[in-house]
Amino acid sequence: MPTISLLHLVENLALSYDIEDKTITGLNTLKDASHSEISFFENKKYLEDLKNTKAAAVLITSEFTEYLPKSSLALVVDEPYLYLAKMSKYFAPRVIELAGNIPKKDVGTAIMQNVHLGYNTIIGSNCTIMSGVFIGDNVTIGNNTIIYPNVTVYRDCKIGSNTIIHSGTVIGSDGFGFATDKKTGTHIKIYQNGNVIIGNNVEIGANCTIDRAVFKSTIIEDMVRIDNLVHIAHNCRVGLGSILVTQVGLSGSTILNEYVVMGGQSGTTGHLEVAPFTTISARGVVSKSIKEPKKQWAGFPLIEHKSWLKLQAKIQRLIKG
Amino acid sequence: MPTISLLHLVENLALSYDIEDKTITGLNTLKDASHSEISFFENKKYLEDLKNTKAAAVLITSEFTEYLPKSSLALVVDEPYLYLAKMSKYFAPRVIELAGNIPKKDVGTAIMQNVHLGYNTIIGSNCTIMSGVFIGDNVTIGNNTIIYPNVTVYRDCKIGSNTIIHSGTVIGSDGFGFATDKKTGTHIKIYQNGNVIIGNNVEIGANCTIDRAVFKSTIIEDMVRIDNLVHIAHNCRVGLGSILVTQVGLSGSTILNEYVVMGGQSGTTGHLEVAPFTTISARGVVSKSIKEPKKQWAGFPLIEHKSWLKLQAKIQRLIKG
Amino acid sequence: MPTISLLHLVENLALSYDIEDKTITGLNTLKDASHSEISFFENKKYLEDLKNTKAAAVLITSEFTEYLPKSSLALVVDEPYLYLAKMSKYFAPRVIELAGNIPKKDVGTAIMQNVHLGYNTIIGSNCTIMSGVFIGDNVTIGNNTIIYPNVTVYRDCKIGSNTIIHSGTVIGSDGFGFATDKKTGTHIKIYQNGNVIIGNNVEIGANCTIDRAVFKSTIIEDMVRIDNLVHIAHNCRVGLGSILVTQVGLSGSTILNEYVVMGGQSGTTGHLEVAPFTTISARGVVSKSIKEPKKQWAGFPLIEHKSWLKLQAKIQRLIKG
Repeated sequence: MPTISLLHLVENLALSYDIEDKTITGLNTLKDASHSEISFFENKKYLEDLKNTKAAAVLITSEFTEYLPKSSLALVVDEPYLYLAKMSKYFAPRVIELAGNIPKKDVGTAIMQNVHLGYNTIIGSNCTIMSGVFIGDNVTIGNNTIIYPNVTVYRDCKIGSNTIIHSGTVIGSDGFGFATDKKTGTHIKIYQNGNVIIGNNVEIGANCTIDRAVFKSTIIEDMVRIDNLVHIAHNCRVGLGSILVTQVGLSGSTILNEYVVMGGQSGTTGHLEVAPFTTISARGVVSKSIKEPKKQWAGFPLIEHKSWLKLQAKIQRLIKG
Repeated sequence: MPTISLLHLVENLALSYDIEDKTITGLNTLKDASHSEISFFENKKYLEDLKNTKAAAVLITSEFTEYLPKSSLALVVDEPYLYLAKMSKYFAPRVIELAGNIPKKDVGTAIMQNVHLGYNTIIGSNCTIMSGVFIGDNVTIGNNTIIYPNVTVYRDCKIGSNTIIHSGTVIGSDGFGFATDKKTGTHIKIYQNGNVIIGNNVEIGANCTIDRAVFKSTIIEDMVRIDNLVHIAHNCRVGLGSILVTQVGLSGSTILNEYVVMGGQSGTTGHLEVAPFTTISARGVVSKSIKEPKKQWAGFPLIEHKSWLKLQAKIQRLIKG
Repeated sequence: MPTISLLHLVENLALSYDIEDKTITGLNTLKDASHSEISFFENKKYLEDLKNTKAAAVLITSEFTEYLPKSSLALVVDEPYLYLAKMSKYFAPRVIELAGNIPKKDVGTAIMQNVHLGYNTIIGSNCTIMSGVFIGDNVTIGNNTIIYPNVTVYRDCKIGSNTIIHSGTVIGSDGFGFATDKKTGTHIKIYQNGNVIIGNNVEIGANCTIDRAVFKSTIIEDMVRIDNLVHIAHNCRVGLGSILVTQVGLSGSTILNEYVVMGGQSGTTGHLEVAPFTTISARGVVSKSIKEPKKQWAGFPLIEHKSWLKLQAKIQRLIKG
């Protein structure tokens, strides 16, 4: 990722502050930002994170600057999230690298015709990369992994060993992120500068989409099983051994702990966490965190599966009554 | 599109009328048909359109011929829609052109390997067209547009400037159109001879499908944001700045006015219009037009979002009661 | 498919029985297994099938061996389904054949650039196979069929004549099959050694997925119409003239008889059968077999469409009450 002078950056956004220059390496959340990263504060829910942030600078409205640690510079703006979006472009890598190390593959790996391998890409041993696959720049793939035809892996993603990805699946496309300028109604893209990391012994079905993170990584842990036409948004984490049946949609920043089962056409509304060994029945919608493990849930709004069954019996009587 | 002699056309369908020949350029709705196009009348809802049509000829049952303007010829048949389907084939362009102007691209545009560019295709400046992309014949693309790997753009479509289309998305596939012969049960394809027009500053996610129009155009207006795995059927219009979250499905001839938000896995049943600044909650299904702007709706059948919340509270009590 | 010595096979799974060797040609259900195939018994629902099986050998727990015909060998294990999964790998064909007959195409068939045709593949006359299409080994395609760009057809599948497959669709990807080892939590892949058979005069939309069967075939019969983003799981059969609207999901072993209509975003839970001329409304979920033909159903749980309409009227009153 490019590094940028803080003063140049704010100047490009037509902002001006009486601050010292710093070298900025990227954008991040208040919680995860390093001493060389910029963050933003817009939602009071994250006030504790603001007080403890290590960010070099924070986009913030004037009323909250008092909570900012002294180590962080305040970049006072009226719409912090909008300015984050405007800044994100400057940290976006090139769509395609023009130079770098030529891609490497280890012994026993078969690359069929009409495959694109980007610069700095490294593929392990005994993999099969089938026709029409696109592997972007800086991608790493482990050993014994099979990538079926017409899969796209965007730049910077990592795929483990003994993993299978079926045709048409897209790994690392941009998360659905933008800020809307309240004055003009213009949607400003938030460049998605993170990546996707897929573990070992994973199988992903056909025509799925797994978006890259806005910051850091969208993560699919070891031994996950994903059916066809499943959508996983930016910054999700799908825990060890979890099972996602066809047409599931996970909204942004959904955390599934280990061995969660999501039934067909179920979904989550994002920014929530699901306890281990939870089962969501087909069509269920998770709209807040599930803390107790090993339970089954159904419906929308979500209720315990056994309550859902009772409810349906009552509705049957309502129909007849 | 091919032009055809009316007499030859009806002869090919084993029909016969005592009429003068005309040159026919295509098929269209009663409302939009020009003096050289054929239309059809099957649904009484469109009686006013019939009375005012400019169509050269209209497929129609005998009982309604009296409403046809004198400028239009009556092509009397027992099943007008079925005959429209049978006719549509004669106006379908070739799947692939065998000749034409070689594709042109402007300065700064990068075309990666394994890209197909069809005849008469014109791409503006500073675009990036990545590996595995298929661009059919007569496509035009503006400036600064990025098309990610393995996207397919069918013939005759138009894409604006500063637009991003993510991997695996299909633009311009045939709309889901056919007529079923009541005697034999045979489904007869209605050739989709329209196109798709995508505006400027649009971003479309991965593995979406946007079908071409049966007549005229499916339209995605400027600044629209579409998430992954979204389906947009033939003849839809998605208004300025609208936002379609993952796995939304718009049925045919859905009109979304400006700044409509469709939540995840929501849908429409087609042939309807949604007022500006409407929000449809996740999983909501729009089954008739929404006329009042700036409201939020939920559920299926659709009700106001605040009523939906109250309903859920009542259902909670029903479970406990 | 490879043939294997029964004794070598059980030895590879660290099992040992005092039995005579046989040549095994594959795995199958109790009902369909031939004298050279292995089957398994895990669900009491299939006890009659067990009593009548012709399988060479059956993976079975000790308590049920008494029901096994004398012609079948008992392979006693504690988790039959898990051992089926472990065995399935040995019958899986290569991902890509390294040799075979070069692909053949008949007169008038156009193959565009960047197409892969596998060994032993045979394509009839007057077909159009567009750029970026992948056709695996041993595929057969009839006459006059159009395959749009970036479609993937996995090995061993069969596609009929006068059929159209739109871009991005995946035919023959692996069904979603695995057994979970209760001791370790490891998911063991069940190799999907069947195929997909698609009939004549079928049209399949863009970005659909049709999975290959675990045994035998997933079948799409003649004249079926499938919209975009539809998922059809392994071992489904979609009957003559059936219509599947956008984003439908059929779970494994769903049998749709002739002229079934599945509305947009509807689904089935699998291992069930739907009577001829049934209509499932948009969003309906079929969770058990429908035996009476020509009815319309809606909702989840599924009820008759007219009851669903009444129910909604009652819910409207509940909201107001």
